[in-house]
Amino acid sequence: MNYRMIGHTMGLVMLLEALCLVPMAIVSLLYRESVLPFLYTILILAALAIPLMLISQKKRHFLSREGYVTAALSWVLFSIFGALPFLFCGHFNNYIDCLFEAISGFTTTGASILDNIEALPKGILLWRSTTHFIGGMGILVLATAIMSSDKNRAHYLTKAEMPGPTADKLVPKLTDSSKILYMMYVILTVFEILALLICRLSLYDSVNIAFSTAGTGGFSVMNASIAAYNSPAVEVVVSVFMLVFAVNFTVYFLFITGRAKLAAKNEEFRFFILVVVISVLITTALTISSAGSFGTALRQALFTVAATISTTGFVVVDYDTLWPAAAKAVIILLMLIGASAGSTGGGIKCSRVLVLIKSVVREIKHIIHPRAVTAIRIDDSSVADSTLFGILHFFAAYIGISLLGLLLVSVDNHDFTTTFISVISCMGNVGPALGLAGPVCNYAFFSIFSKIVLSLLMLIGRLEIFPILILLSPSTWRRN
Amino acid sequence: MNYRMIGHTMGLVMLLEALCLVPMAIVSLLYRESVLPFLYTILILAALAIPLMLISQKKRHFLSREGYVTAALSWVLFSIFGALPFLFCGHFNNYIDCLFEAISGFTTTGASILDNIEALPKGILLWRSTTHFIGGMGILVLATAIMSSDKNRAHYLTKAEMPGPTADKLVPKLTDSSKILYMMYVILTVFEILALLICRLSLYDSVNIAFSTAGTGGFSVMNASIAAYNSPAVEVVVSVFMLVFAVNFTVYFLFITGRAKLAAKNEEFRFFILVVVISVLITTALTISSAGSFGTALRQALFTVAATISTTGFVVVDYDTLWPAAAKAVIILLMLIGASAGSTGGGIKCSRVLVLIKSVVREIKHIIHPRAVTAIRIDDSSVADSTLFGILHFFAAYIGISLLGLLLVSVDNHDFTTTFISVISCMGNVGPALGLAGPVCNYAFFSIFSKIVLSLLMLIGRLEIFPILILLSPSTWRRN
Repeated sequence: MNYRMIGHTMGLVMLLEALCLVPMAIVSLLYRESVLPFLYTILILAALAIPLMLISQKKRHFLSREGYVTAALSWVLFSIFGALPFLFCGHFNNYIDCLFEAISGFTTTGASILDNIEALPKGILLWRSTTHFIGGMGILVLATAIMSSDKNRAHYLTKAEMPGPTADKLVPKLTDSSKILYMMYVILTVFEILALLICRLSLYDSVNIAFSTAGTGGFSVMNASIAAYNSPAVEVVVSVFMLVFAVNFTVYFLFITGRAKLAAKNEEFRFFILVVVISVLITTALTISSAGSFGTALRQALFTVAATISTTGFVVVDYDTLWPAAAKAVIILLMLIGASAGSTGGGIKCSRVLVLIKSVVREIKHIIHPRAVTAIRIDDSSVADSTLFGILHFFAAYIGISLLGLLLVSVDNHDFTTTFISVISCMGNVGPALGLAGPVCNYAFFSIFSKIVLSLLMLIGRLEIFPILILLSPSTWRRN
Repeated sequence: MNYRMIGHTMGLVMLLEALCLVPMAIVSLLYRESVLPFLYTILILAALAIPLMLISQKKRHFLSREGYVTAALSWVLFSIFGALPFLFCGHFNNYIDCLFEAISGFTTTGASILDNIEALPKGILLWRSTTHFIGGMGILVLATAIMSSDKNRAHYLTKAEMPGPTADKLVPKLTDSSKILYMMYVILTVFEILALLICRLSLYDSVNIAFSTAGTGGFSVMNASIAAYNSPAVEVVVSVFMLVFAVNFTVYFLFITGRAKLAAKNEEFRFFILVVVISVLITTALTISSAGSFGTALRQALFTVAATISTTGFVVVDYDTLWPAAAKAVIILLMLIGASAGSTGGGIKCSRVLVLIKSVVREIKHIIHPRAVTAIRIDDSSVADSTLFGILHFFAAYIGISLLGLLLVSVDNHDFTTTFISVISCMGNVGPALGLAGPVCNYAFFSIFSKIVLSLLMLIGRLEIFPILILLSPSTWRRN
């Protein structure tokens, strides 16, 4: 294990977090709130980061294993220190609650333990939304975007953090890829801020909502989430942008580089649109009577489907109590499917689900016509056996870890629906669950133990399972 | 498609069912009950079977596809006609209820739509238990055991019906394998009947319980299931035999042919025992307070764990209302894991779960130590990639179909726990679920549509997914 390089990278990551906190301190000053929560955190981060950054890096091997460990550690450290402003502001009961909120933020889950969000200072709420924005595109993508970095290290770091079955690069040079990704991310976020301003929201609310949407997080500055604005226009704008951020950014890159046809033919993109359309049609049909009119049903269905498949988790309707079981079943399936690979969303990812379906169908066809052996094709290229194995293993591990999570969180002795859907929701980085942790509730009632388990599930889900398992595996730390 | 041979085999299968019904008619006569339900069914079966059996069989190809279609059709026909005695006896509301009960019987699920079991004639109840006994080892294993059959056909037929990832033959000749399997099956059943007679149960109850245990079904002749006998001795005997029938029969064959060491080293067997021991320990610890004493808690935990992992579904305690959430979570996991391959039980099967765990662990080890590529080994032989793909696909399809089932049964608008666990329970051929379909309830309240969906899930689960999907696939019936 290349401890020196890991240590040095941790220093960089902590300095990066300190820099991210500076604008929060300024906003606090503007709103005449206490700047101390941020100031203390920045000082602690700087005091720890500078010695770590002084570690000399002998250029040695930095491989897959180091990449996964560094990615996992970065996220853990970012959360540990990102929780400090919450602790110092005095609105949280204990540090575990702060850590839960920070992990929920960075992993873009958006599950909160806060009862009264509106009571918090504006600077702290902006930091909450900003954790989504940072976590959405990834801590290490940000790091490689702003640092001219070791090529080899950058490759393994972003590979460990990027969502999806294969690590696509937009352009041959990885640092450039990260920069382009971040540029598209920022521009789309600015578009959403402008759209919300046109809907007559304040700049503060617009920025918070846009940060939260961009990261597909779901933290809101209002207790009633997006329903608080009582504005169909805002609902439609947020619906559209939740879907926008759930699409593979490669599709946008193809589009802006003049390859619109190729973008439109992207199979994952088409599958994603198909799932959204079918889900909206089913849930609209099932909720017309409870919504009162077709228009309201359609708007609420579109919003809820977009909020779930993008794994954002904003809320405009209490679907847990108002929707029939079949509509809720659609929402549960969307929690599992999740967004596209290469987007800021969570879940299993559309591309994996598509490959799984194609693979099972091929198995059936193979039994029916044994001589017709065909490769699985996605976007006109065949899926390698190793990629297929990776996807099948990911799915098995995803379900297995969720079931283990169910077992552990069950110790709290809540009803099965609450426990199981909370686990699925945290694992998929969605946020709202059903039952006690439903769309108009929060996660405050869980025990400290369950909050730790759910936090771990959020990290496992966001980093796509393997980095966290490798960090926790004893054989990683054994000398060989 | 070799329609002639499929037609001929269907004739044989229907004649076999007619023969199975003859003892039921005799029992009805002995108890001075109406023999007409059986007589009518036997006549209908014979009238349809004889013309089918006259179809001349040109020896042509009979491959995998034909095997799967024949297996699926045999089970469907057995259920369609096996439901007729229920219809003719007049204790059921409609034919779909009868069909649900028959499919639940043959697939050894044991989910019932009967409110008052004890009101039924003894002949009909024995037929109910007998459907478990026939379905446990398999309709086609029975057929190949008693018919001197085409070698090629027998191979593909039993391959499509046998539970587990690989089709093991005990001895080189398949007809002999089927005979040995059936012999062990009958002998173990006789042992259980004797043990229950020693516990002072009547011969009628003993035979019914033993048939139901042997097939890991769960139908009982008493409304209160095994709890009705109020006998710790009976509970222990049934617990032990539920576990006995959930073990791969190959282990017994190794044992009786003097290879006890090899039998004891069987990895699936060890994994099965490990899961049972851990589950019993956890559930005992969690239920001591509700059971009143350690002894009662242990006995009820052993019984419930055995009933669930073997997918029998007998009940001695209402764990849905009395047990804490964590103990119920253990039960839900056991419903999914299921029994051993090559046993009469359902679920995903221990061997598959073991391979899935080993395969994910290997993936993690491979990332940590990229140069150490190791094969997955089970019982000292490495698992082929094709087998591994098969297991991973099975798991993906199992979860995918369960989720589709959740969506369809949700149309009934029952609570999530009832719907989801009923689906998991039917897919795993367990029987009792949680909520409205809990251990002291039944499936009567589901709509006709849901009963059809759940029946289909039972068949899909019992035949291990692919035969039913192939039967329903349009491309099977297309001329090529």
